Amino acid sequence: MALIIQKYGGTSVADAVRVKEVAKRVLKYKNEGHDVIVVVSAPAGTTDSLIRRAYELSETPSKRELDMLLTSGEQISIASLAIAIEDLGKKAVSLNAFQVDFKTTDEHTKATILDINTDIIREKLSEGNVVVFAGFQGITENNEITTLGRGGSDTTAVALGAALKADEVEIYTDVDGVYTADPRVVKNPKKLNTISYQEMLEMAASGAKVLHPRAVEIAARYGIKIHLRSSFDDSTGTIVKEKGDESMEQVKIIGITSTKNEGKITLSGVPDKPGIAAKVFSKLAKAKINTDIILQSSSVTKEFNNISYTVSIDDLKEAVEISQELKEELGAEGVSYDANIAKISAIGIGLKTHYETTAEIFDTLAENGINIDMISCSEINVSCIIKEEDVNKAVRALHEKFIEEN
Amino acid sequence: MALIIQKYGGTSVADAVRVKEVAKRVLKYKNEGHDVIVVVSAPAGTTDSLIRRAYELSETPSKRELDMLLTSGEQISIASLAIAIEDLGKKAVSLNAFQVDFKTTDEHTKATILDINTDIIREKLSEGNVVVFAGFQGITENNEITTLGRGGSDTTAVALGAALKADEVEIYTDVDGVYTADPRVVKNPKKLNTISYQEMLEMAASGAKVLHPRAVEIAARYGIKIHLRSSFDDSTGTIVKEKGDESMEQVKIIGITSTKNEGKITLSGVPDKPGIAAKVFSKLAKAKINTDIILQSSSVTKEFNNISYTVSIDDLKEAVEISQELKEELGAEGVSYDANIAKISAIGIGLKTHYETTAEIFDTLAENGINIDMISCSEINVSCIIKEEDVNKAVRALHEKFIEEN
Repeated sequence: MALIIQKYGGTSVADAVRVKEVAKRVLKYKNEGHDVIVVVSAPAGTTDSLIRRAYELSETPSKRELDMLLTSGEQISIASLAIAIEDLGKKAVSLNAFQVDFKTTDEHTKATILDINTDIIREKLSEGNVVVFAGFQGITENNEITTLGRGGSDTTAVALGAALKADEVEIYTDVDGVYTADPRVVKNPKKLNTISYQEMLEMAASGAKVLHPRAVEIAARYGIKIHLRSSFDDSTGTIVKEKGDESMEQVKIIGITSTKNEGKITLSGVPDKPGIAAKVFSKLAKAKINTDIILQSSSVTKEFNNISYTVSIDDLKEAVEISQELKEELGAEGVSYDANIAKISAIGIGLKTHYETTAEIFDTLAENGINIDMISCSEINVSCIIKEEDVNKAVRALHEKFIEEN
Repeated sequence: MALIIQKYGGTSVADAVRVKEVAKRVLKYKNEGHDVIVVVSAPAGTTDSLIRRAYELSETPSKRELDMLLTSGEQISIASLAIAIEDLGKKAVSLNAFQVDFKTTDEHTKATILDINTDIIREKLSEGNVVVFAGFQGITENNEITTLGRGGSDTTAVALGAALKADEVEIYTDVDGVYTADPRVVKNPKKLNTISYQEMLEMAASGAKVLHPRAVEIAARYGIKIHLRSSFDDSTGTIVKEKGDESMEQVKIIGITSTKNEGKITLSGVPDKPGIAAKVFSKLAKAKINTDIILQSSSVTKEFNNISYTVSIDDLKEAVEISQELKEELGAEGVSYDANIAKISAIGIGLKTHYETTAEIFDTLAENGINIDMISCSEINVSCIIKEEDVNKAVRALHEKFIEEN
């Protein structure tokens, strides 16, 4: 008998028909003798309509009240699923964050999990219940209701898995696993049977939306296996675990991702003094703007530098404003920005040992007439900033060269 | 500076426009320097749609999960109203049952309030917040979520008023007060400026739907003034308090109510033995069926009795079945029932001193050709069971005689 945690997204609990299907799937596992905890999101559409409601009432709804408003959505899902499971003749009990002391920090709309009291969940499981738990939400030490932000329900499921030492956390979604590239871009993407935490993190951080990095980070820290699979059929999906299959170690690159979700800012003609870069990035950090790729280039005279960096497109406007201030403060020449960029990334633990691959990536892009603007490399990730219009061509070229031909 | 509790029903918070109107009204009081606690119901329609959802999933949803499901509705309302108040520049904070330890019994869907921890509410008020509290819901000692059943939000408001020793509890509704009779039946109903708890209780129990008896009972026990008023204008409504205005004491009857919400059952030919009536009503009580009016009549031979009683129309089917069992157990002759009855009630503290009035009521009905089937009198209430088809005629006749002509 195993302890299995299953997470279903909003589409899977959108209406009564879907909820009943989830109930049946849950019971298949329960009937095999497993203990099952189900984590659900709000019904599809509910969160959006609640957010719309909030902004009808105020242009600047407080984050505390947004959390209070949005967490009503998961409550609908957990009660609905518990009712559907009970209707199939099995015991079920829905539980809310406050009922299991699902403690988080007090940063409303983007809280971090601190601690989970597993006593109540274990008690309910031992009584033979399927436990249906509300994803995305938590409470603070002062009983304030919080939400975990993006990827919240995935994170809830994996955190529960860690706290309860679950045998597996299954994340049900509308795709059947992690692919070597976006199937909408590439003709012959391959589904990965396994992927390491590290690779999955790089994939997620580089544009693969299938699993949120926060969830992967927790899974990695506690060694929890995640099974990412489709809620539409019973096929095996992709297992995210400590190491990918051994055969995979021979593979240089397991995935090509891309994102158009960044913008680039350049501070040009910055007088070359020590501590300039630190000043730039500490000012951005204070405004809670994350920079991704950073490039500092000297001018011919060596007296001036150009500093370029990329940020999330959501932060671009604010980052440009801050850079204008920095221009004045530092006596720089100008600020320019470009929203029409894309980042493509080639990811694989094999990069660690295949030193030649990085150069081959640049070659491949050059052969296809794609100009590289900025480069960022980690041990298992080579990322390039290119023109947005080149992105699909770049993904196809790299996928063909490093995945299809291998 | 007073402490005022305002309760708004689902219609008042149905959409953003309505919620903003409520926010403005709340702030009028806040700006006058009062501390304000607002109790809100779920947005109109939400509870019904959630119940529909539950019954799509199961013909017999568990009461625990129904409570979990339904309480999401009030959470939407409290967050929405808090956002709207904050948007007008004032501090507001929404609070849920678990956040203020609003303790109830564990009878799901019809829990009774046990205790309220007022510390958090007082703290939030002292920080200058309007407190927006979720009506209808509570939690048990084991952190299970409960609901208070019918009239729940009114009850929440009055219970908070009692716990916090509020100066007034205002119940906002779609009528502007308590009337001497249903304006849809009677041409010239009078709005009552004041009414005593006792009279209000009898009115509510006898068909006036304007305020739930549970809320009135709590108000009476703790001496909390209720101001029942319209959410559409600023006019004064009806104050429910210990004693009605002194002038009212001279009035024999302050209201005529009617309800078609009862059915009558007769067990005929019951052998006359001691303890028979007790047996009948303890069996009904065990099935949690409340009987209203009871009539035991001896037959001419005195060897057999007929026992008639009325129950809520919702319980009629089950009560008939139980009566069939009783027929066998007691060796009675037959069971008959009648769903086409109505109860009319004349209510007033004046009845205590005007002994002749009861007879005048029967006379008035007789003069109008209305047959009285059963009679039940308390100190301040004379109720008659009549044919359903006679009900409006009866209300008009009694209203004319005892209210319009006085």
